[in-house]
Amino acid sequence: MELNISIIGAGNVGWHLAYNLYKKGYHILQIFSRSFENASVLAKNVNAEPINSLSKLNKSADIIIICVKDSAISKVVDKIKFQPKLLVHTAGSISMSILSKYKSHGVFYPLQSFSKTTELNIKTVPFCIEANTQANKKTLLAVATKLSGLIYEINSEQRLQCHIAAVFANNFANHMFAIAEQLLAKNDISPDIIKPLIIETAHKVQHTPALLAQTGPAIRNDKNTIKRHIELLQLPQLKKLYSFVSDSILNFKIGNLPLNNKNEQL
Amino acid sequence: MELNISIIGAGNVGWHLAYNLYKKGYHILQIFSRSFENASVLAKNVNAEPINSLSKLNKSADIIIICVKDSAISKVVDKIKFQPKLLVHTAGSISMSILSKYKSHGVFYPLQSFSKTTELNIKTVPFCIEANTQANKKTLLAVATKLSGLIYEINSEQRLQCHIAAVFANNFANHMFAIAEQLLAKNDISPDIIKPLIIETAHKVQHTPALLAQTGPAIRNDKNTIKRHIELLQLPQLKKLYSFVSDSILNFKIGNLPLNNKNEQL
Repeated sequence: MELNISIIGAGNVGWHLAYNLYKKGYHILQIFSRSFENASVLAKNVNAEPINSLSKLNKSADIIIICVKDSAISKVVDKIKFQPKLLVHTAGSISMSILSKYKSHGVFYPLQSFSKTTELNIKTVPFCIEANTQANKKTLLAVATKLSGLIYEINSEQRLQCHIAAVFANNFANHMFAIAEQLLAKNDISPDIIKPLIIETAHKVQHTPALLAQTGPAIRNDKNTIKRHIELLQLPQLKKLYSFVSDSILNFKIGNLPLNNKNEQL
Repeated sequence: MELNISIIGAGNVGWHLAYNLYKKGYHILQIFSRSFENASVLAKNVNAEPINSLSKLNKSADIIIICVKDSAISKVVDKIKFQPKLLVHTAGSISMSILSKYKSHGVFYPLQSFSKTTELNIKTVPFCIEANTQANKKTLLAVATKLSGLIYEINSEQRLQCHIAAVFANNFANHMFAIAEQLLAKNDISPDIIKPLIIETAHKVQHTPALLAQTGPAIRNDKNTIKRHIELLQLPQLKKLYSFVSDSILNFKIGNLPLNNKNEQL
């Protein structure tokens, strides 16, 4: 049976989901965006009807997927006055219960950083699935499995922790990359020089726990190098950040895991 | 002309350099390690003579490469009593001038994280080259070019900045990955769930400046999400780190570069 799916939101997540579901043979019924133009661009790509009012939502959709930013989900909910066959959202930090006034609801959260301009291999995107009934979960698992090889059944609390973890792994790590690039640029060195190291760093933790992959002056408690680096950083903000993260590396013992420095060096 | 190269140090850098130089057709003359056993294991792999005393260094080596940890370089220098044809070190944070009592000296710094247990594509390792004469620089550039496609002529001050940048890009980013993994583990979620995001994060900055790739609650100044995340983090250390790095993301304006948030979301 071919499911009819409607997508609310034509941003990064909506774009990638609609496109990939369409490629997998699902029928995309409607694309909603407040901007009719945005809705139309995406709708055209996936052979769907563009709408810019939620009152025009087609009740016959088998699944309606909300792909708007977290703070807008409750506004969407206020405007869906009927009982959809299955209504889900795609947010990491929002509990499933925000949809509890609907008889059939769930969460379909792709744990990845999406950008309209970057082609993404949906097969490697982890999907976190939650639903209010076994039947709804089964439906969502079937759709997720068509898209990706990485499916996780997790509850709202766990999903929130996933989102926090993603902030560290993506947002905060990216900030470290940004600082590195700016330090290089300020010293007339091409930021390209650091790119192989960034790739290697990410690849290493694919097969080694990051705690064991930790190297550098902080984990060695090499106070001379740390002091020298802090002296050389000009901005007070960066001095503080260097010092703070170095201390954190040395003290990091969540869950009483022992610090364990492997035979590696930078 | 086939150069004879000796390597002082059988750690991660010495291991990878010796092995790759050997593969490229260089004759590895001697491998020094304080542990004769360590010297022997590597020497056997590259058809070299193992030594555990620097007094046994063969003066006929065209290049002697010091691959010991930063703090041990001066001790090595104390023990090399003759004038090598060309003596170089491989340290990011140590000035070339530590070798200034030798007529021919330089630096041959591979900007990558090495591990004996991980096979590395030396072609993608950036080499930072410095030398005290044009002739010596030419020699080092020729060797580096045989190994890698990424060669940078940079001075000692710039190299130190590269090393600080590498601490941010590798050590500090890895710490963010480690925290993410531990948060997941504590909540009974497989750390594997975050791995595709880590890869995507590293790949994105290969073609997009990290400052422009920044996403997440901090750059959006989404105070509600930030507050909620900090509440959910149990360890005071992590609460502080989350808050500190979030502030840093928002305030990050090195060189008066404008903050520029692209149309991306996590």
